[in-house]
Amino acid sequence: MQKKIDLEEAFETVKMGATEILLEKELKEKLESSAKNGKPLKIKAGFDPTAPDLHLGHTVVINRLAKFQKLGHEIYFLIGDFTGMIGDPTGKSETRKALTAEEVAVNAETYKAQVFKILDPERTKVVFNSQWLGKMNAADMIRLAATHTVARMLERDDFAKRYKEGLPISIHEFLYPLLQGYDSVALHADVELGGTDQKFNLLMGRELQRLNGQTPQSIIMNPLLEGTDGVNKMSKSLGNYIAINDAPRDMFGKVMRISDELMLRYYELVGMLSFSEFESLKAELKSGKLHPKSAKVGLAKQIVARFHSSAAADHEAEQFEKVFAKGGVPENIEERVIQLASCPPGANSLSALAVPALVESNSQLRRLCEQGAVSINGEKVSDSKMSFAAPGEFLLKVGKRGFLKVVVKK
Amino acid sequence: MQKKIDLEEAFETVKMGATEILLEKELKEKLESSAKNGKPLKIKAGFDPTAPDLHLGHTVVINRLAKFQKLGHEIYFLIGDFTGMIGDPTGKSETRKALTAEEVAVNAETYKAQVFKILDPERTKVVFNSQWLGKMNAADMIRLAATHTVARMLERDDFAKRYKEGLPISIHEFLYPLLQGYDSVALHADVELGGTDQKFNLLMGRELQRLNGQTPQSIIMNPLLEGTDGVNKMSKSLGNYIAINDAPRDMFGKVMRISDELMLRYYELVGMLSFSEFESLKAELKSGKLHPKSAKVGLAKQIVARFHSSAAADHEAEQFEKVFAKGGVPENIEERVIQLASCPPGANSLSALAVPALVESNSQLRRLCEQGAVSINGEKVSDSKMSFAAPGEFLLKVGKRGFLKVVVKK
Repeated sequence: MQKKIDLEEAFETVKMGATEILLEKELKEKLESSAKNGKPLKIKAGFDPTAPDLHLGHTVVINRLAKFQKLGHEIYFLIGDFTGMIGDPTGKSETRKALTAEEVAVNAETYKAQVFKILDPERTKVVFNSQWLGKMNAADMIRLAATHTVARMLERDDFAKRYKEGLPISIHEFLYPLLQGYDSVALHADVELGGTDQKFNLLMGRELQRLNGQTPQSIIMNPLLEGTDGVNKMSKSLGNYIAINDAPRDMFGKVMRISDELMLRYYELVGMLSFSEFESLKAELKSGKLHPKSAKVGLAKQIVARFHSSAAADHEAEQFEKVFAKGGVPENIEERVIQLASCPPGANSLSALAVPALVESNSQLRRLCEQGAVSINGEKVSDSKMSFAAPGEFLLKVGKRGFLKVVVKK
Repeated sequence: MQKKIDLEEAFETVKMGATEILLEKELKEKLESSAKNGKPLKIKAGFDPTAPDLHLGHTVVINRLAKFQKLGHEIYFLIGDFTGMIGDPTGKSETRKALTAEEVAVNAETYKAQVFKILDPERTKVVFNSQWLGKMNAADMIRLAATHTVARMLERDDFAKRYKEGLPISIHEFLYPLLQGYDSVALHADVELGGTDQKFNLLMGRELQRLNGQTPQSIIMNPLLEGTDGVNKMSKSLGNYIAINDAPRDMFGKVMRISDELMLRYYELVGMLSFSEFESLKAELKSGKLHPKSAKVGLAKQIVARFHSSAAADHEAEQFEKVFAKGGVPENIEERVIQLASCPPGANSLSALAVPALVESNSQLRRLCEQGAVSINGEKVSDSKMSFAAPGEFLLKVGKRGFLKVVVKK
């Protein structure tokens, strides 16, 4: 009975937050037979060979790989260098220049440096599909192309849309899903992870494995992670991202500022809790046994520890407590110097210093003053229109988090 | 001025009976510059690698190659073995098994044995597209596929039709026209010949040559030859064919039985007259200077001489004159023996012997008797119901061409 419960737990853990699984029953059976015969499953996920600069949103799939890895399965981190080295043969896109083998190697190292913060390097097989696709000849390619019809390929959403709108689809674009599918054949993948937008290509893997007499891989589709705003998908251009290379302080702070709801989403998609641990967390939050802030600190520490170190995580947590929870002052706060003699009119006013550095607007500053949330050297300030007219050193605090050291000189 | 006339003659000669030329102006210019710089043009025509059993209809393209060859150009007789050796990878067609290299070699010899009756073996380059396509890898194939769009490929009539009707088109079928086109690039072809149904694929050659910085090949499209009935295209299944391996007598006889109009068509498409010679022939026929029968004998002799020998052609012409023109009896006529003692009732009747061996029906036999066109040993027979009741040897003649030797025994 113990065994059965473990399997259920394993299944639910690798499934956490997935948008779709094809097919759940198959995946369960695979986990079951792997547990029985002690043979780990082969888990595949494919990545672009372009230079990676990852943010948390990119790690959803890698995080799930890590969960499989923790359960003892074999991880195939596949870098799709074959097509990358062909580039964009239509010559229409300037951004898709053919990569050299050296560039691919360099990019792979950059990848590894980032993903091995999540995956165990010892137990991760980094593979390049040029290893097998590079050996394919034109005849093999033709045989592969013969496995599917034009109509089937035009079922893919983006192809269907472009064809309908009269936008060009180059014939080689029909070959790429087949190649991606063939990767699963070459690896004998048991499970493939990918984004929801990859569904068509992931299914190609199943179809080609079946045609090659293999058991079709199970597919786990992953959602796009919401950015720190909790609304849009995480993206560099929207500025709502947590980069893997963010400094520990930024990273910790960004996590602490997300909503309680989003915190649970991050726990689910980029955390390493098992299914039952996650369920306990939710139950404790609901019962009030665990305060959301504590849960958030836990998540922030987990994330900083993963991408920096446990020491950095502990340090940031301490700092955070010092500033926010105990009303203390953080280290290294910003300093502004005012020379009264040469100061332009109004530049020494509270609002000139606080807006927009600490608050968004004069009206917000006024409100905070009224609420008693603005202080200078610990003394509350009620007049938002006051100025620093005398020399001295002042610690300005606005709201819970806004600190500024103001040095006023004659 | 002499030069100019020769070029015009050359152009008109290689153009005889073509359904379409792309582009006439280009082809003229190519012939012109070849004449100037003494560099022969490269003339390409592609053929299936399957075992050939050719009839006259298949030789239209080869005949045009022969005309180019006579003008001093380089002939590339291309055997498309590359795709033949892949077979039908969809596995849907039982008839398109993959050919082995040995089978291709055997088929090539069979081809040569037949086409070298038309082309000069010394000056014909027999090439196999596996020579260059076999060296292509998957990446090359992808780059080739990238040169054209799905929409462009779906412009091909048969693809358009099948797609519209919901019939499957395998993706590799989109690759074949590109490969055929690439053959022209590999050969640096100046001119390609093909059937009208090949127009799309022939144009691929032009497009790919242009993309590869070559001067696009000119294209000469050839009609399907009408069968001996003058109505349907020549085909084995319709029985209206003249096979290359037909016996001299059959071949000669079949040509002599075609209509005068069809004779001119055969002269144009499978004869070796130059344009001006052909024009003279037509003029002489029109003026009555040349009798159609003589022209037909000339054609029949030319065809028998090509596929057998001049001697065989002369012999058949002699035989023909003997039998039909001078009312003589051919050699080796069929013999039927009747044993009166054991003969079933009616089996010794004129009609039993003549229908359907010599005439189609009893009523036709009756009419011929009435017209005095039936004779036994030179004596006219008016009664179509007579029987051979006495022993002896009889030469039965029905109409101009029907002969039967009847041997009646007790």
